[in-house]
Amino acid sequence: MRGYTFYQRASRAFQDYPSLSKLVVVFTVSSGGLVAFSDAKPFRGAYADAVQCDRKKKKVVSPRNYFAFTPLLPSVTIGTVEARSVVEPIRNIVRKYHGLHHCRVSMFPRLQSASEKDFDVQFREAECLRIDAKNKKVYCQSNQESNLGGKEEFTVDYDYLVIAMGARSNTFNTPGVVENCHFLKEVEDAQRIRRTVIDCFERASLPSVSEEEKKKILHFVVVGGGPTGVEFAAELHDFVVEDLAKLYPAVKDHVKITLLEAGDHILNMFDKRITAFAEEKFQRDGISVKTGSMVIKVTDKEISTKERKTGETLSVPYGMVVWSTGIGTRPVIMEFMKQIGQGNAQKESTELNIEGFKSALSEVDSQMKNLPATAQVAAQQGAYLANCFNRMDECEKHPEGPMRIRGSGHHRFRPFRYKHLGQFAPLGGEQAAAQLPGDWVSIGHSTQWLWYSVYASKLVSWRTRMLVISDWGKRFIFGRDSSRI
Amino acid sequence: MRGYTFYQRASRAFQDYPSLSKLVVVFTVSSGGLVAFSDAKPFRGAYADAVQCDRKKKKVVSPRNYFAFTPLLPSVTIGTVEARSVVEPIRNIVRKYHGLHHCRVSMFPRLQSASEKDFDVQFREAECLRIDAKNKKVYCQSNQESNLGGKEEFTVDYDYLVIAMGARSNTFNTPGVVENCHFLKEVEDAQRIRRTVIDCFERASLPSVSEEEKKKILHFVVVGGGPTGVEFAAELHDFVVEDLAKLYPAVKDHVKITLLEAGDHILNMFDKRITAFAEEKFQRDGISVKTGSMVIKVTDKEISTKERKTGETLSVPYGMVVWSTGIGTRPVIMEFMKQIGQGNAQKESTELNIEGFKSALSEVDSQMKNLPATAQVAAQQGAYLANCFNRMDECEKHPEGPMRIRGSGHHRFRPFRYKHLGQFAPLGGEQAAAQLPGDWVSIGHSTQWLWYSVYASKLVSWRTRMLVISDWGKRFIFGRDSSRI
Repeated sequence: MRGYTFYQRASRAFQDYPSLSKLVVVFTVSSGGLVAFSDAKPFRGAYADAVQCDRKKKKVVSPRNYFAFTPLLPSVTIGTVEARSVVEPIRNIVRKYHGLHHCRVSMFPRLQSASEKDFDVQFREAECLRIDAKNKKVYCQSNQESNLGGKEEFTVDYDYLVIAMGARSNTFNTPGVVENCHFLKEVEDAQRIRRTVIDCFERASLPSVSEEEKKKILHFVVVGGGPTGVEFAAELHDFVVEDLAKLYPAVKDHVKITLLEAGDHILNMFDKRITAFAEEKFQRDGISVKTGSMVIKVTDKEISTKERKTGETLSVPYGMVVWSTGIGTRPVIMEFMKQIGQGNAQKESTELNIEGFKSALSEVDSQMKNLPATAQVAAQQGAYLANCFNRMDECEKHPEGPMRIRGSGHHRFRPFRYKHLGQFAPLGGEQAAAQLPGDWVSIGHSTQWLWYSVYASKLVSWRTRMLVISDWGKRFIFGRDSSRI
Repeated sequence: MRGYTFYQRASRAFQDYPSLSKLVVVFTVSSGGLVAFSDAKPFRGAYADAVQCDRKKKKVVSPRNYFAFTPLLPSVTIGTVEARSVVEPIRNIVRKYHGLHHCRVSMFPRLQSASEKDFDVQFREAECLRIDAKNKKVYCQSNQESNLGGKEEFTVDYDYLVIAMGARSNTFNTPGVVENCHFLKEVEDAQRIRRTVIDCFERASLPSVSEEEKKKILHFVVVGGGPTGVEFAAELHDFVVEDLAKLYPAVKDHVKITLLEAGDHILNMFDKRITAFAEEKFQRDGISVKTGSMVIKVTDKEISTKERKTGETLSVPYGMVVWSTGIGTRPVIMEFMKQIGQGNAQKESTELNIEGFKSALSEVDSQMKNLPATAQVAAQQGAYLANCFNRMDECEKHPEGPMRIRGSGHHRFRPFRYKHLGQFAPLGGEQAAAQLPGDWVSIGHSTQWLWYSVYASKLVSWRTRMLVISDWGKRFIFGRDSSRI
């Protein structure tokens, strides 16, 4: 499970710890935004009279009004799961912890009556442009044009700031990638990929298109042999074989799926047995895996690679390229890290004083660098952070962290410890591989069922859980939908 | 039921009459395209070598690769039903009539193996630009850019042509409507409306927006008091009251829904009892119904009306306008009608000769003018037309139509007769009104259940039927989703 990096923290903080009351948190969402809790100070808007915030309320800011369970995005690209089944409105989530006392009711929000008092959290749909660490301000901008022209801008003050913005796709500055490739970070990306796949099949079916052109149009290239790239290639292959081949029999033989990996093997973070199984399975399935092949340029028609073994440069025409070679830090975060001097965060962790909480956050972040950017890590960090917030007063009096090296006493919080529970790699054809702690490896159909149950259990709400499970059922009965919407 | 005007014909023709074998049909789709069956001649493409069509195959051309059950579009706008639940891929439909012999299998397409031989019909995703009636050619253009730049163009020859392109929204040339209003004809329209409603609520929730501005943003205007406008206003009201009010408690009191109707009453094609009930219900619900109010201009901020009673001109600011004042003929059809002289179609129906079939079609069309442009009419016309095609050979020898006025013998086909089975008007709050033949009127909750069963039964496939019913169930349990996707 990977992808929803920092945000799950936030979501967990909401769900598990309803009693947060004396804090100001700003965290950013996996979908590229910023979520802010603010307790001490109200929003400062352009219209002073419009500010009528409850001073007790925390603030959440995100450019999207929903939380997306990104580990299921590869399934959304080809319609195994619907986009709407993996998202939950943030307002539902922040409302939920009232519902915790009435569990049955929170499962059925329609039956619940609500008033403004039900919300301890105020949500704003906006993007975080800049963080001013010195003055503790977050500068936000709405995604929408206002009636007066231009986009609404406002600032949020904070006492405590949680950044859970997620990462951006890393193109390694390869020319033409941003312009010509699809990414797989957001729900919109997945929807766009789905439409593009159908577009390619429809275009290849036109009578005026030559055989050679059909082959180009139906050449799907996946760049990056990590878990996301492998899962997408496998899902696409299943979609083609199980569904599209029946609806587009005239062009089905022209389809080619190529997986490009710069390293020696795909899934190189997994056990060798899994890598070998995946490579063999892909070969049997007809997915062309090219390792040691580094993409150096993408134009609107061709993708160019440099082959490590031979040193030669190859160019192949394509119909669609999906780029998933890893993630990078968002510019707004880089700027913020510079402000708070996170380049040398290790130093700071020895000084523990008035900046107590900030430092605890730095500590988390400094450790993060060594942890994989997966949903599993993010979820555990979310729980840890919420726990820290909830026990802040208590820990002030009774520090529970490790002994200080300089000075006396303890650190305020125990440091975050990541507990690795294993990792999945779905390989298509109702087969998956799993690497469990202690070098246990499980591969095959039963592992796919394990995958189904783990993913269903990790979904953010009962609603999405039911929707995803019913999507899986629908796919089994009716196949995937090929309507271009 | 209204909206899918001509296309259902086509769909029916496919589904009910699998044995069509000696005809060339071109028909256009409700979503604005063209569906073509072609038997005698293959497609003529730019690349001669690419043309490898089975000469026995009919051709279908449509700018969208799915058939949309448009009568449920108002439900899609606010998420009572998902967009994907009301569409069926055309390739699924044209494949289906083979499946008729194996009904169980056709319900579960995944379990069915398919080859090119399974298709008697070739589908092309393209728009019809022009029809050349003299040379029996249809000029088509793909929606997608080709690799060479520009869009693929090709022609389709036909012997018989069925046009079922559906209508376009009629703006009566009111300035600013196309630029600033939402229509409700296509699936994309419904999706766009859904996003815009959520956008309005999110924007109104921003801290920098004044109270006055909130009121503007949350003013939803529906133009046209016909069944579509009334249903949309009612659905939007339900969405606001049942779902959004709970998630946006701070702005819910600013919401206003206005229904503008140029005539004296809304639903004026219905019985007076229904009109009165609807107007009273809307008043109780707080939906402001303004009759005798004609829209004369729409800017990006305001909508201007002329009041018939007072003669004065009013301008009100709005957040979203949905325009549903009726339908008009598409330009490509107008041109075609001119070519075949359909302005005076009545004349032609007396001449029955070599042009037999064409004349039968004219007859259908000339009658159509007097029939409402509803799905019910279209469905019956589709069945009629398919029946004509299937019995063409037989009717050649044994004409079954009425006596000819000039000449001797009978017309080749009996003329189309429309059988009105009644009409629904959903009014929100789980209530609906129905006007049944013989001036029977039924209003209330039980009528809404009748509506559910009739609409579920009319859906185009078992798959969509199951999806729509499960959507209704989901809405009842979890409410409607407010994620902005």
